Amino acid sequence: MVTLILDCYGGDHSPKANVDGALKVLEETSDLNLLLVGDEKGIASELQNKKYDSSRCHIVDAPEVIDCHEAPSLAVFHRKNSSLVRSLDLLKDNQADGMVSLGNSGALLVGGVVKIGKIEGVTRPAFCPLVPTMDGSFCAICDSGASSEANAQEILQYALMGSLYLEKAFGRKSPRVALLNIGTEEGKGDPIHQEAYQLLKACPSLNFVGNMEGRDLTSGAYDLVVADGFSGNILLKSTEGMGLALLKLLKKSFYKNVKNKMGALLLKKDIYEIKDFMDYNNYGGAVMLGLKKTLVKAHGGGDERHVFHSLLQAYTLEKNQLSEAIRSSLASLQEAQK
Amino acid sequence: MVTLILDCYGGDHSPKANVDGALKVLEETSDLNLLLVGDEKGIASELQNKKYDSSRCHIVDAPEVIDCHEAPSLAVFHRKNSSLVRSLDLLKDNQADGMVSLGNSGALLVGGVVKIGKIEGVTRPAFCPLVPTMDGSFCAICDSGASSEANAQEILQYALMGSLYLEKAFGRKSPRVALLNIGTEEGKGDPIHQEAYQLLKACPSLNFVGNMEGRDLTSGAYDLVVADGFSGNILLKSTEGMGLALLKLLKKSFYKNVKNKMGALLLKKDIYEIKDFMDYNNYGGAVMLGLKKTLVKAHGGGDERHVFHSLLQAYTLEKNQLSEAIRSSLASLQEAQK
Repeated sequence: MVTLILDCYGGDHSPKANVDGALKVLEETSDLNLLLVGDEKGIASELQNKKYDSSRCHIVDAPEVIDCHEAPSLAVFHRKNSSLVRSLDLLKDNQADGMVSLGNSGALLVGGVVKIGKIEGVTRPAFCPLVPTMDGSFCAICDSGASSEANAQEILQYALMGSLYLEKAFGRKSPRVALLNIGTEEGKGDPIHQEAYQLLKACPSLNFVGNMEGRDLTSGAYDLVVADGFSGNILLKSTEGMGLALLKLLKKSFYKNVKNKMGALLLKKDIYEIKDFMDYNNYGGAVMLGLKKTLVKAHGGGDERHVFHSLLQAYTLEKNQLSEAIRSSLASLQEAQK
Repeated sequence: MVTLILDCYGGDHSPKANVDGALKVLEETSDLNLLLVGDEKGIASELQNKKYDSSRCHIVDAPEVIDCHEAPSLAVFHRKNSSLVRSLDLLKDNQADGMVSLGNSGALLVGGVVKIGKIEGVTRPAFCPLVPTMDGSFCAICDSGASSEANAQEILQYALMGSLYLEKAFGRKSPRVALLNIGTEEGKGDPIHQEAYQLLKACPSLNFVGNMEGRDLTSGAYDLVVADGFSGNILLKSTEGMGLALLKLLKKSFYKNVKNKMGALLLKKDIYEIKDFMDYNNYGGAVMLGLKKTLVKAHGGGDERHVFHSLLQAYTLEKNQLSEAIRSSLASLQEAQK
């Protein structure tokens, strides 16, 4: 059996989206227990009149909610009755194997490091979100902003952790790893990225395919892009931002006049497909790589599909023992670099 | 009179786009001389049968072309007969006030620094391209990748140079300056960006409005985004890349079947408007800020409209003496920081 914690508050559509996602994942699995953490009454009211296997689903009361604007460190240490901190404490006390939260990223990061702890050998844990690609697949970014800087050795760790994640979560064998840089040629970038290139190239357990420029994230040519957290964050947010801005512009033109509305109606199916393809609700959240237990940070705006995919992601990673694979891979690296 | 050099080769549509753009800008101005540099026969053949003021337009023969893949330093020192190096040499010898090239960015950067020289007080020259925003205007990014790193003081210089550029080229008074960062709150980012925030905030001649995340570049809330060249380059390329990728996807769906084709026909005008709005040919190129003379790097894929806008940009900057304004602003800053 795998036991997962679901923080049921902290998202825009909480607790409804969280509970509905949880019930869906219970339906799809037979060896998964869920602890639903948050305001007991709120969760119970969402569960009312719904059919589910109650022997695999338990509520843990934690009436407070951490706001997305609260200072992470303060929240982690002073809001013990919040759904997020309560979830982390349960995980720390070995009441579960992993957890999913839609809440405050900073608090999850601080709490994850302080309460759950890093895998031996990991210097910086990293957020690893998924971005849809134009060929209908997706590409992972590691690190997308857990840290605001990284050295070359840490970027190498991101590559190893991210590759194992893609293998364990989605069965991608020898994922194509690129280094985010300002040009494709070897030798591009600042000294840290030049050194990272050499480390990645020399690592036998990686399928390193070279530098990638910001414009090629969605090309489908890469499975994983490794980056210092600063530039990885810029890459993720500017790609998502431009996608949403253009869709908004399109939508505006579709409603502009009767002629346009008729045109949009004819195109409806395919336009929805494009919108759908960019919808993170069809994917899981950002896994926090490098912690002793599985922790998935889902989008705050996610709906029940996103919660479902995020829980399924955490479940699969636990089944395939990602944390142990990362520990072993970093130990081998350390041995080889001695 | 202002004299500008136009490197007529090195672009995808050279020399036709270059020559056509040049003739258009001659039509719109009365006190501008142009030196068209490149293969004499090729340029002459483009000029043939066209009406223009030949007293303000002269060809300078330089038969070679630098490829976009050539190593910049080698090209600058060994390809003296190329249109790009010949252009730089003419500028260095005071045969003109400024220049526009669609050629190899690296060679322009190296050549600009070595042959033209930096303004006193400038430590790193910076590329400053324009990106269209959703409100129909545009936002500048400085630095977009002339350097692969920058310290806080250099980011402050980018802000001063970029603000003066927007004022001198487009009459934007007290442009809103944001710092590219991984969160909007003060205190976000690595130590360099934290320090840069404080320097920008304390500078009385800037209209600093705070940190900006990657997703907000096209929002219209900012006139100038300052960034170390590494993250600025990621911002520019990922925003452009996602825009182009989505337009491609849309285009594909428009041609998918008869129904979609009909729908697209009805929407044609507005879809073209969106495409047009993202088209860099409606704007000028990236000015290289911090050099003693005006140097504009236009897109290699630019058409005659882009060449026209880039020449007009260089002309306006010369008329409004941007380089002198930058020199004086940095001297005042140095004085104030003593």
